[in-house]
Amino acid sequence: MTAGKPIKCIAAVAYEAGKPLTVEEITVDPPKAHEVRVKIDYTAVCHTDAYTLSGVDPEGAFPAILGHEGAGIVESVGESVTNVKPGDHVIALYTAECQKCKFCTSNKTNLCSSVRATQGKGVMPDGTSRFHNAKGEDLLHFMGCSTFSRYTVLADVSVVAIDPKAPLEKVCLLGCGVTTGYGAAVKTANVQKGDTVAVFGAGTVGLSVVQGAKVRGCSKIIVVDINDDKKTWASEFGATDFINPMKDLKKGETIVDKLVEITDGGLDFTFDCTGNVNVMRDALEACHKGWGQSIIIGVAAAGKEISTRPFQLVTGRVWKGSAFGGIKGRSEMNGLISDYFDGKLKVDEFITHRRGFTEINDAFEDLHHGDCLRTVLDLSK
Amino acid sequence: MTAGKPIKCIAAVAYEAGKPLTVEEITVDPPKAHEVRVKIDYTAVCHTDAYTLSGVDPEGAFPAILGHEGAGIVESVGESVTNVKPGDHVIALYTAECQKCKFCTSNKTNLCSSVRATQGKGVMPDGTSRFHNAKGEDLLHFMGCSTFSRYTVLADVSVVAIDPKAPLEKVCLLGCGVTTGYGAAVKTANVQKGDTVAVFGAGTVGLSVVQGAKVRGCSKIIVVDINDDKKTWASEFGATDFINPMKDLKKGETIVDKLVEITDGGLDFTFDCTGNVNVMRDALEACHKGWGQSIIIGVAAAGKEISTRPFQLVTGRVWKGSAFGGIKGRSEMNGLISDYFDGKLKVDEFITHRRGFTEINDAFEDLHHGDCLRTVLDLSK
Ligand SMILES: NC(=O)c1ccc[n+]([C@@H]2O[C@H](COP(=O)([O-])OP(=O)(O)OC[C@H]3O[C@@H](n4cnc5c(N)ncnc54)[C@H](O)[C@@H]3O)[C@@H](O)[C@H]2O)c1
Ligand SMILES: NC(=O)c1ccc[n+]([C@@H]2O[C@H](COP(=O)([O-])OP(=O)(O)OC[C@H]3O[C@@H](n4cnc5c(N)ncnc54)[C@H](O)[C@@H]3O)[C@@H](O)[C@H]2O)c1
Ligand SMILES: [Zn+2]
Ligand SMILES: [Zn+2]
Ligand SMILES: [Zn+2]
Ligand SMILES: [Zn+2]
Repeated sequence: MTAGKPIKCIAAVAYEAGKPLTVEEITVDPPKAHEVRVKIDYTAVCHTDAYTLSGVDPEGAFPAILGHEGAGIVESVGESVTNVKPGDHVIALYTAECQKCKFCTSNKTNLCSSVRATQGKGVMPDGTSRFHNAKGEDLLHFMGCSTFSRYTVLADVSVVAIDPKAPLEKVCLLGCGVTTGYGAAVKTANVQKGDTVAVFGAGTVGLSVVQGAKVRGCSKIIVVDINDDKKTWASEFGATDFINPMKDLKKGETIVDKLVEITDGGLDFTFDCTGNVNVMRDALEACHKGWGQSIIIGVAAAGKEISTRPFQLVTGRVWKGSAFGGIKGRSEMNGLISDYFDGKLKVDEFITHRRGFTEINDAFEDLHHGDCLRTVLDLSK
Repeated sequence: MTAGKPIKCIAAVAYEAGKPLTVEEITVDPPKAHEVRVKIDYTAVCHTDAYTLSGVDPEGAFPAILGHEGAGIVESVGESVTNVKPGDHVIALYTAECQKCKFCTSNKTNLCSSVRATQGKGVMPDGTSRFHNAKGEDLLHFMGCSTFSRYTVLADVSVVAIDPKAPLEKVCLLGCGVTTGYGAAVKTANVQKGDTVAVFGAGTVGLSVVQGAKVRGCSKIIVVDINDDKKTWASEFGATDFINPMKDLKKGETIVDKLVEITDGGLDFTFDCTGNVNVMRDALEACHKGWGQSIIIGVAAAGKEISTRPFQLVTGRVWKGSAFGGIKGRSEMNGLISDYFDGKLKVDEFITHRRGFTEINDAFEDLHHGDCLRTVLDLSK
């Protein structure tokens, strides 16, 4: 019985920006009221982890335990936790859902405010940390998840119990990238049968947008990526066209010209899944006059800004964004799990690399290779 | 009987950018197929006329007959015209509605494409002009309307017949500014009871947004204008608050800070009615996280761009625009006339100045004075 006691376990600690993670034994305190301690079985590495570790994230703070795309089993719960119980299979939610705040009750957004302030500071809602290293130093939490530890503590609003039949080594990806792209298509944009769609950037996020567009029966799903190796993947996930703007444009032609030409006036929906602000502008301007909507999903580097002539909007294009695909983690995650079981939502196909947890620094390296969609780490190894 | 013959009449000709208009006699050809000749009784002067006359509009071409906010009576119609007949009271529509093109049939936009290309070039759909001066030179059309002439010729898709009980000297304003603002609120934004709204710029357009918000029962209608004289007008049209950012901010406080503070997080809807790109940015950033929408109505100077951090959109704000209030001129104008008769839509109150047509250059001067909303010109004088 570990409940109520500190647990010693392995974790990957980010001690300093720009340095590799240190895999070492830490102590994880028991959960307080409205908190849940989870044994993480699998976690993937996402760009946001790398962004923070690199030191360019102005809000990054150290030492911290990163990781936010993970799944595991509830070990114990603190007082007043009613949504999960020990033994439940869960996915960590960096976008909490309290079902009570102004945001949750608005029915207009998934951006819950309940734990936002403390989550941003790397602490639990009571202002303290549950992680300590061997020297007794506190380690910061990250995005309310910290899945790079065999055991982690989350707010109860940041956990969703899922069907135990769902394989955790696969559905851990629903904790970020896959859900983000799929939700952006089916929820934020709410694409419909016959719509034309362009997706800029064919990583896990972009390919998941493609999946959403395919499920809805979009008539054209054009993937734009500067890496030709993405062409096969794009078509496997449902794209009808692939354009590499570095190679497939005529002299003097822009990607916007090309897209407008092949769609007779522009797209009904476009999605930025690159994080590049110039791409975001192209994505907007490739939208059809009168109704085209462009959805920004990519996270731009600090300080970068998007621009366009206001005429683009006055003539009917709409510029919006999407965080975690607009998905409310606790209410809607099991719908995605159903879509996965029904074969509507591919998840396994994103796992290009598998590694033991001690190889976590190599998993960060994988991210920079065009042949990697997601590396899943097994925390038992 | 003038039908079928050229008509000689008075018009105000823009011969050169930056120069006053020349009021002189011109010849107006009879309407060709799908064209309508209208005797204009009243016209107002709008910023777009001034923008083109000033020469800074890169698409402005001369000599031309400007004017697009006008009303009159059909004198004669060309072949195949079925939507209006001689004697009908009409409003000129710079946003045509053909009810057949891809845009009209989309039911997603009011931006009809039927006459767009030739309208932009200052000619009728057959590529020629109906206006000639005493020297026999062709004069260009403008925005498909050219209401600064006692007689004008319009495409049939650019004319709507209205209830003859509606006073033309008032409802001519529905040809642009009033419809643009009111429609942006009730149609483009579709504001609802209880919503909070901020309107930047309290000219005819902004005050008409205020009217739309009031009709819908918005709970807070905040007008932001740098001219204190607009305060009284704002409250007469329905504003609940007025802020002058030049005077009403604490040291170091921005207009965005102030708006976010007094609305507990930001507005449900904001509208730019200034044409200033910095204001457009403020309007977006004053929106509530998660759902706030900002609508650009103002027309920016050529080459100006809007910017923001993409994070503003990723966290749920939506940036859009509105042209002619999203209103389909032929299908929806009579709804606005009803709202006017019912007292829901104020129009008369915008007419701060009245002048005879020969004083048209003074009407352009009026535009630059803070005490002018609209000057209506009587073409019979
Ligand atoms: N909004 C959210 O909630 C959210 C959640 C997760 C990830 N993200 C962001 O989404 C983006 C995509 O994530 P991912 O995991 O799919 O990344 P990824 O690196 O695997 O994929 C990005 C793809 O974009 C392509 N690309 C790069 N520059 C390009 C350009 N100029 N034109 C066309 N294609 C280009 C790359 O070749 C690559 O295939 C990242 O910015 C990530 O931070 C956002
Ligand atoms: N999108 C369309 O279809 C459409 C149609 C008509 C007019 N317009 C545009 O709408 C805008 C408004 O038209 P209008 O006739 O009401 O103009 P107006 O000049 O009468 O009103 C503009 C108001 O904005 C205020 N203002 C200027 N700078 C400001 C600032 N920095 N902050 C706050 N307030 C400021 C002025 O004091 C004035 O009261 C213009 O840009 C016009 O070209 C657009
Ligand atoms: Zn992520
Ligand atoms: Zn909440
Ligand atoms: Zn106008
Ligand atoms: Zn049309």
